[in-house]
Amino acid sequence: MNKAIRLAEKLDKIDGYWTPAIVAALNDYHVKLVKLRGEFTWHRHADTDELFLVLAGSMTICMRGRADVSLAKGELFVVPRGVEHKPVAGHECHILLLAPATTVNTGDAPGELTVEEPRWL
Amino acid sequence: MNKAIRLAEKLDKIDGYWTPAIVAALNDYHVKLVKLRGEFTWHRHADTDELFLVLAGSMTICMRGRADVSLAKGELFVVPRGVEHKPVAGHECHILLLAPATTVNTGDAPGELTVEEPRWL
Repeated sequence: MNKAIRLAEKLDKIDGYWTPAIVAALNDYHVKLVKLRGEFTWHRHADTDELFLVLAGSMTICMRGRADVSLAKGELFVVPRGVEHKPVAGHECHILLLAPATTVNTGDAPGELTVEEPRWL
Repeated sequence: MNKAIRLAEKLDKIDGYWTPAIVAALNDYHVKLVKLRGEFTWHRHADTDELFLVLAGSMTICMRGRADVSLAKGELFVVPRGVEHKPVAGHECHILLLAPATTVNTGDAPGELTVEEPRWL
């Protein structure tokens, strides 16, 4: 579509937590938006880095064997491939995620929170 | 680095306009920040899409044979590969750019504004 993608407008269309939705494609990558609250599942992505950019609120990325990284609005972090991690947000937090389109949110730890095929917003 | 990347802090380190600087790597992609003002060069990237996300201010992406796309803070757009485009900003605008690390800012139209190897911030 030949139109600006307004992130706040897209976020308004997301109801639940931990349910990534796609807003744009860049080559074979997807730009996803997610609302977080609480604790996600420990998991790793063996084949890809994963970028987190906080759009509203704040969150923490716990990583096995590394110091936690806390992110506030306007801050980003790239979790390196293979590093086991768990996103946590005490209050509602809105983020932009970037990774190859084939990346599944729960990586090597499928379960209740797995979203195999996120919807497009 | 096991540390949040604060975009506003990185932007403070950029002096000129149209001089992309790298703040993060995601697989073989680079996340770059750029300050814009005025008109850039018409150019295309034959082999890749290019993502623009406005962090402050507003800008317009002119594209050959397509309607202009205006972007304000919190809005993004992906210029498809091969589409000739020219970013324009009437006032200072701060953006995040995402494309493969090998992507040169002026694409197929090298000139005074070309930055072959952006610095890391």
